[in-house]
Amino acid sequence: MRTVDQTIENPFQIVSHDTATKARIGKLQTAHGEIETPCFMPCGTQGTVKALSSEELETLGAQMILSNAYHLYLRPGEKIFQNVGGLHAFMNWKGAMLTDSGGFQIFSLAPLRKVTDEGLSFQSHIDGSKQFVTPEKIIQFQRLLGSDIAMVLDECTAYPSGRKETEEAMRRTHVWAERSKREFRRITNDERRTTNKEQLLFGIVQGGTYRDLRKESCETLVAIGFDGYAIGGLSVGESKELLWESSAVCAGHLPPDKPKYLMGVGMPQDILEGIALGIDLFDCVLPTRNGRNGQVFTSYGILNLKNASYALESGPIEEGCDCLACRGYSRAYLHHLLDAKEILGVRLTTLHNVSFYLRLMREARVAIAQKRFNDYKDQIHQWVRRHP
Amino acid sequence: MRTVDQTIENPFQIVSHDTATKARIGKLQTAHGEIETPCFMPCGTQGTVKALSSEELETLGAQMILSNAYHLYLRPGEKIFQNVGGLHAFMNWKGAMLTDSGGFQIFSLAPLRKVTDEGLSFQSHIDGSKQFVTPEKIIQFQRLLGSDIAMVLDECTAYPSGRKETEEAMRRTHVWAERSKREFRRITNDERRTTNKEQLLFGIVQGGTYRDLRKESCETLVAIGFDGYAIGGLSVGESKELLWESSAVCAGHLPPDKPKYLMGVGMPQDILEGIALGIDLFDCVLPTRNGRNGQVFTSYGILNLKNASYALESGPIEEGCDCLACRGYSRAYLHHLLDAKEILGVRLTTLHNVSFYLRLMREARVAIAQKRFNDYKDQIHQWVRRHP
Repeated sequence: MRTVDQTIENPFQIVSHDTATKARIGKLQTAHGEIETPCFMPCGTQGTVKALSSEELETLGAQMILSNAYHLYLRPGEKIFQNVGGLHAFMNWKGAMLTDSGGFQIFSLAPLRKVTDEGLSFQSHIDGSKQFVTPEKIIQFQRLLGSDIAMVLDECTAYPSGRKETEEAMRRTHVWAERSKREFRRITNDERRTTNKEQLLFGIVQGGTYRDLRKESCETLVAIGFDGYAIGGLSVGESKELLWESSAVCAGHLPPDKPKYLMGVGMPQDILEGIALGIDLFDCVLPTRNGRNGQVFTSYGILNLKNASYALESGPIEEGCDCLACRGYSRAYLHHLLDAKEILGVRLTTLHNVSFYLRLMREARVAIAQKRFNDYKDQIHQWVRRHP
Repeated sequence: MRTVDQTIENPFQIVSHDTATKARIGKLQTAHGEIETPCFMPCGTQGTVKALSSEELETLGAQMILSNAYHLYLRPGEKIFQNVGGLHAFMNWKGAMLTDSGGFQIFSLAPLRKVTDEGLSFQSHIDGSKQFVTPEKIIQFQRLLGSDIAMVLDECTAYPSGRKETEEAMRRTHVWAERSKREFRRITNDERRTTNKEQLLFGIVQGGTYRDLRKESCETLVAIGFDGYAIGGLSVGESKELLWESSAVCAGHLPPDKPKYLMGVGMPQDILEGIALGIDLFDCVLPTRNGRNGQVFTSYGILNLKNASYALESGPIEEGCDCLACRGYSRAYLHHLLDAKEILGVRLTTLHNVSFYLRLMREARVAIAQKRFNDYKDQIHQWVRRHP
């Protein structure tokens, strides 16, 4: 049985490098198939990628989706996952799945939460009930969910935060990371409780926008040892300069042979910046959330289909896109559906947006393999200049 | 070119009769394929069957869907249909389509509407704008939509309504039916304006719950001559006894060789009652509306999946159902999605319900062909007794 200590069986292999940037193509073995990186994970926070079915995600070529232990712990709760044998069966998803611990979401509940070294007290955002979770509990629950990648519970700080506060949160994140690893090892070594031998465990780097804290956080987590490393606590309001500075510090202090995951980033151009730093995994609510607002991503920029100017346009969202929305439906029809608040409208815009993000990643991988990633990135940056 | 007067080319052929009831199997030729009757039309009032894509409807085996000229006239309006060439192209629907005139919907707007022999004045339910439509205008618009079956504009009365009021509305309905037929003939004989030579025109019988008025309405409409006849103004609050009495009177006074359509009916057991009277076409919002409320139709009755009792049920909505919802998803998952107000929840319940109704019609046709329709109807009535 593989544990996170047996590095001899590193499930991550680097296949190809770009030359001018740190971008790389990797293959990550999971219990639900091999993931090609860089990889974007559509967000299925509550056990569903909003508005899409699992069949549609598969058709779109999604390799791995993200879900959230915090949300699923509160609703539907543990018992149903014991009954059906995990989140894959529950949501009928056959691909890979990463579950976030929910640290970020719980910290967003301030002032309804209280943190101690032992764990986190908070009030449920659903029914106001009092809850208490520990790093161990979150690991146990993700084990029950049977995700392919589990994340440790971490403490996020808001931006801006003072050095002392950031340092304290980082220190606690490290204590929790150690405890999470210990609990994960205990469970995976206990045959009776092992339901998914291949589950991977990722640590989460904190340290705000302080370069030295970020470096310290990377080194501490690497010393504990994880299957992969996430860069947390960014894209929370800091400038793009600070985002990329902090990300670059982390990318530079994390082991090159492990997958790196930049949490919650972001716009297409931001994902490409991350890839150039050697980041392998990304997630973001933008394609789904913007879709529900009528905003669609195209190679000519972001269009808001609620705008009356699309009411008579008989062409698809994007010429050449092979998604179901673009193959069958006009901008005018989507405008009508959004205007009339018809569910099919947000279904189709969401489907197109997820398709756009997955295509972006496929194109990025091809560009890396052909050692022309900077050209591709520049092309997308020109897109941004046209549509800031 | 076929017009409604050339009865030699009756697009409706009766294939098989039940023995103990008036149920029959028919084939209706439309510009978008042959429809097997009895046929249930899912409601796509605003140019979309709520929560479903046209691809899903096709997969479910929907033969014909219903849309509404009134809604589409107000939004998105005429111009887009001129641009894209009709509603089929607009909503990417390849099957047959019937468009209701909107008479029922406009009369539901009281007191925001005013009726004269010339036409209907009303305030838009969308933006409050003042509108005026005539029977001719509604025919022209349905010609533009390119539906396979167009309906005349009629005047509905509420239930209960006095005899004088009902008689007056019926008289006006007849005048409008005559004008609609004349306008339809004018357009179809005008080569330059003919975009869909095979469009059929149906009249609508009114007369409330007065047997003699219903008989008179049938005879008047038959004298004008239509490709098929709808029974309107029922299922608006009258008792089941009055509904079936009025329906039977109409069914008995309409030509047996023409398709009959009972508008807005209904529950599964009601549709089977209608079939037993020789009705061929049905529409109802129940499968879609109930689906959005979490209610699903099964052969064990109607279940409300929002009920907490389904939270841990790992089985499908209905064992043996081959719809996408039942093949891939548990009641527990659907309960969770509905509880969390996730779009996928209402997508899957709607999809199952439409699948249930279409299966009901397939089973009814088989039962008619095997001359055992009453047995099948009794079976469904037992279902109702268990779940009133």
